[in-house]
Amino acid sequence: MTGPIVVINPNSNQAVTDGLKDALAAFNLTGGPKIECLTLEEGPFGIESQFDSDSVVLPLAKLMQSRLDAGAFVIACYSDPGLDTCRSVVPHPVFGIQESGVLTAMARADRFGVIAIADGSIPRHRRTMARMQVLDRLACEIALNMSVDETARGAGTFDQLVDVGTTLKEQGAGAVILGCAGMARHRAPLEAALGIPVIDPTQAAVAMALGALLAG
Amino acid sequence: MTGPIVVINPNSNQAVTDGLKDALAAFNLTGGPKIECLTLEEGPFGIESQFDSDSVVLPLAKLMQSRLDAGAFVIACYSDPGLDTCRSVVPHPVFGIQESGVLTAMARADRFGVIAIADGSIPRHRRTMARMQVLDRLACEIALNMSVDETARGAGTFDQLVDVGTTLKEQGAGAVILGCAGMARHRAPLEAALGIPVIDPTQAAVAMALGALLAG
Amino acid sequence: MTGPIVVINPNSNQAVTDGLKDALAAFNLTGGPKIECLTLEEGPFGIESQFDSDSVVLPLAKLMQSRLDAGAFVIACYSDPGLDTCRSVVPHPVFGIQESGVLTAMARADRFGVIAIADGSIPRHRRTMARMQVLDRLACEIALNMSVDETARGAGTFDQLVDVGTTLKEQGAGAVILGCAGMARHRAPLEAALGIPVIDPTQAAVAMALGALLAG
Amino acid sequence: MTGPIVVINPNSNQAVTDGLKDALAAFNLTGGPKIECLTLEEGPFGIESQFDSDSVVLPLAKLMQSRLDAGAFVIACYSDPGLDTCRSVVPHPVFGIQESGVLTAMARADRFGVIAIADGSIPRHRRTMARMQVLDRLACEIALNMSVDETARGAGTFDQLVDVGTTLKEQGAGAVILGCAGMARHRAPLEAALGIPVIDPTQAAVAMALGALLAG
Amino acid sequence: MTGPIVVINPNSNQAVTDGLKDALAAFNLTGGPKIECLTLEEGPFGIESQFDSDSVVLPLAKLMQSRLDAGAFVIACYSDPGLDTCRSVVPHPVFGIQESGVLTAMARADRFGVIAIADGSIPRHRRTMARMQVLDRLACEIALNMSVDETARGAGTFDQLVDVGTTLKEQGAGAVILGCAGMARHRAPLEAALGIPVIDPTQAAVAMALGALLAG
Amino acid sequence: MTGPIVVINPNSNQAVTDGLKDALAAFNLTGGPKIECLTLEEGPFGIESQFDSDSVVLPLAKLMQSRLDAGAFVIACYSDPGLDTCRSVVPHPVFGIQESGVLTAMARADRFGVIAIADGSIPRHRRTMARMQVLDRLACEIALNMSVDETARGAGTFDQLVDVGTTLKEQGAGAVILGCAGMARHRAPLEAALGIPVIDPTQAAVAMALGALLAG
Repeated sequence: MTGPIVVINPNSNQAVTDGLKDALAAFNLTGGPKIECLTLEEGPFGIESQFDSDSVVLPLAKLMQSRLDAGAFVIACYSDPGLDTCRSVVPHPVFGIQESGVLTAMARADRFGVIAIADGSIPRHRRTMARMQVLDRLACEIALNMSVDETARGAGTFDQLVDVGTTLKEQGAGAVILGCAGMARHRAPLEAALGIPVIDPTQAAVAMALGALLAG
Repeated sequence: MTGPIVVINPNSNQAVTDGLKDALAAFNLTGGPKIECLTLEEGPFGIESQFDSDSVVLPLAKLMQSRLDAGAFVIACYSDPGLDTCRSVVPHPVFGIQESGVLTAMARADRFGVIAIADGSIPRHRRTMARMQVLDRLACEIALNMSVDETARGAGTFDQLVDVGTTLKEQGAGAVILGCAGMARHRAPLEAALGIPVIDPTQAAVAMALGALLAG
Repeated sequence: MTGPIVVINPNSNQAVTDGLKDALAAFNLTGGPKIECLTLEEGPFGIESQFDSDSVVLPLAKLMQSRLDAGAFVIACYSDPGLDTCRSVVPHPVFGIQESGVLTAMARADRFGVIAIADGSIPRHRRTMARMQVLDRLACEIALNMSVDETARGAGTFDQLVDVGTTLKEQGAGAVILGCAGMARHRAPLEAALGIPVIDPTQAAVAMALGALLAG
Repeated sequence: MTGPIVVINPNSNQAVTDGLKDALAAFNLTGGPKIECLTLEEGPFGIESQFDSDSVVLPLAKLMQSRLDAGAFVIACYSDPGLDTCRSVVPHPVFGIQESGVLTAMARADRFGVIAIADGSIPRHRRTMARMQVLDRLACEIALNMSVDETARGAGTFDQLVDVGTTLKEQGAGAVILGCAGMARHRAPLEAALGIPVIDPTQAAVAMALGALLAG
Repeated sequence: MTGPIVVINPNSNQAVTDGLKDALAAFNLTGGPKIECLTLEEGPFGIESQFDSDSVVLPLAKLMQSRLDAGAFVIACYSDPGLDTCRSVVPHPVFGIQESGVLTAMARADRFGVIAIADGSIPRHRRTMARMQVLDRLACEIALNMSVDETARGAGTFDQLVDVGTTLKEQGAGAVILGCAGMARHRAPLEAALGIPVIDPTQAAVAMALGALLAG
Repeated sequence: MTGPIVVINPNSNQAVTDGLKDALAAFNLTGGPKIECLTLEEGPFGIESQFDSDSVVLPLAKLMQSRLDAGAFVIACYSDPGLDTCRSVVPHPVFGIQESGVLTAMARADRFGVIAIADGSIPRHRRTMARMQVLDRLACEIALNMSVDETARGAGTFDQLVDVGTTLKEQGAGAVILGCAGMARHRAPLEAALGIPVIDPTQAAVAMALGALLAG
């Protein structure tokens, strides 16, 4: 498969998609697969509940089925909505960003921490990690308790990221995952501030997609 | 860090290093980090025992310390020799190919299988997976029972790979890892023969290294 | 809450719903909560894939939201579709039959076995058990490899159930779960044939729902 | 089996048995199995140590052997004394209230908390949960540090239950188990105060027993 | 504590106690603690069921309470009857031979195998290993299916031990535990025949007791 | 094998070796194997990093190969350097003191705590416990944050040991391991102060070695 890596933002907030484009620009290398970022138009403005997450599964699957020209897909929502269904309806590699972020953090440290946006999403994330059988590697997950939209725009976000990241480090995290698709621009400064690897999960998923496509 | 991805073959068999170069050629993209493959001259001709594996730790650490211009390192031996020590002596991302291969397989299937070269290396691999706390995701590991050198040259290798891969699939593996640095050329045909993802662990590690460097 | 236990068959096969009514008739005790069995009209004729399973999540949630008079809900499909979402949109106890069947089997034996309808559903079931963190209690899951509809009508079903159940017992199962909503009528004869407890998961879920409502 | 559900209080405190009768009154439905609550006369006045727990095993087994007319048995002590032995000497379903309480809580929340009577019983409970391989689902267990008798009569008990329950909730518990046979009357008010399911373990065991007998 | 290591055979078969004396003779070193082997007169002739095992708990505890002059106790039955109760009634180190045998095997190999006397005891042993949270280290447990008495006298025992031990080795065991108090005389020849460590659990427990007493 | 138990201090600090001799004097029983304590001359003055630990692996292996007259070997450094390699190059039982200390603590309590010398060694110890698959039994590991040399001589060491041990006990530890080869003289007074078993890991390893040799 030599088609593009199609990264789908399953919420309908175009600002989030634009942020993904910026975060992934460096992965768009000459001679490599193109990175294409799409907004799922049927999605809610933000995915902030289990219902929101389940509501995008069928539209995601249909969108993938309409893009059989792709080389690989990335579902750019940290709840990994529809990952199993999408894998069952297209033959392509399909990556969820939580799954990829967690696995990439596991290549950088014995235990990892996660910065969630809101307390309410932590049980949902834990269920995914339970299903992945990797909870023993989790040091701690702590929420910023801001909306996706706030974190995408808010001025005080970085300070809160440093606070939460520092606590995660004290709790044993040797790497930190940004538990949301929209915080990539904070990755490098947060890594500098904390002194341990900080993983943007969409970048992690795209790296894995690149690996699958370049393997030849 | 914008230096090259330095991939070190810790055995002194230059044919293995040459195979790595071929396997990784496609990852050498214009505008991205260079991929540089080195042979550890102090290494044994093949790493086939725990002693062999431990014998390369200090030379590997010293080689990395002499290459601080690198962007990231990959230890291209499926025993992941010296991974902890290397991480402790250089500030760079350091990837072991077993660790990366296993984590990448976990992004492709619920359970994975491993094709080892020799029975004797399976307990060593299991110890690494135990340390990673991922044994619950392992369907089965089965050996070809050939030497590294034989697999690098042997004509009957592919048929044995298909046989072992088929057994792994019957045992529940949804993805298969080539448990050796020198079998990348069999990846694509084996994937076609088995109908499930086949992971070359060095490619998996290089993809993760690319991700770490392109994250910016 | 003193309303009925609303048992929802999320496929649109009325014969399955009728079978549920029969299986649950004895649970409809004077003075206790009524047991009401509904068919989800929007559901597919059978739920035989991850896509089928995800397709009923939103209709299930909406149906529950329209039945706030209920005392508790049971989702009568062994894939437990929409369990998390349903729990998040109604304040009632919501039971999935896989979850209830597994937990009930764990009260009867150290290790349990599962009889699935088809091989294709086993990975889906395993993911649920992984999420529940109970895979260590699973002896084995083996499929009959028949369609839901066949098992509901087929004459040879019982013999196959005994065969598979016997194998599960040999593999260490001390109790067996019927991994489907439509096989309750085989429960008692299969238990007699195998000599170990056989759990019908819908009955298990309704018992748990009874417990929640009678607790007062 | 159509005999009664025989619930045995293995301590000789008749007040505890009377409390069980009250707690289980609603489960005594017309047309369903009778619920019969017995006091084990040979038991100590309270089971507050491992020795106490082991001291009732043989008398419990003998009592069950004298009641072969029963349909099912419930051992109404949160230490689950003699569960394995009883299961080995009678062919009936035998439920322990810790085991049933824990499994029922697992059907209501991802992680559960337990309110113990005394610190000294927590290691004993943990050993049971270890044996059940469900410790990963335990958020926390915290003791009231009162005697069984005090909790059965004490006025300040409810306030302490709310305090401990609130702490369990903060530690991640999505459901709370009353870790003692004698606190059922606090179940409903505590559930109202905490806003999450509260499980009385004897009711949980009786519901499972009902399920086993009504399954037919 | 400078008293003897009191090894209690909880069955009343004096031949088993005499076998223990022989097996432990070499541990009776000048200047070290004496090893004293006792028969529990209240015990059944053999402990072959959960009921048998539970029947000796209180007599064991009382015997220990009458021997406060001891330095440490060993319960020489592979079901580890009464281990928790005994630890709670005397301040001495108390060792169970299953627990000690398993832990000692874990110091010799990544995975261990167990040779049980009878199939019926395997679930009981598994429950102990579950409680110890070490089942992941168990390769396999297989029974000879002979009575304790037969194994103590039978001529064909050794051949069966080699057969079962060979199978355990094929299943991944790197060490083998004799899952019974009465097979010590087969330890050395079986180790020679299999080529991997064979652990007599009573010897393992006495070594741990020696360690506790000599630590000073 | 009737040779001595050769205990190797892999650092070159003779004071540590002398401490080992004192700690093990009581294990040198008439008629039993001799205990011989050696200093690895090639070792660093203290093993305080992963690099230090890996640097002694080959010299340790060579030293063992030069002492085939031994009955068993003990590697007296809590990082268990070279345990796998040493086991692969000599046929003798080889014990690591971390492994032996942890397993011995597991025979004394449900959960154990570890007192490390320095924070930096805790991740290294956790990796060993992960590999052993025993992390579920760890209550907590806390560091004194002193150098090996300081703890060997420092006056305030005991007070800090009591402080840290008390915290471990509060965190659920029922036994405490001294996570270093050089603190044996504090074992008995610390056990008296804490009221729970305190394990010196070298003594634990030597007891296991005694057991292996006396088994005959």
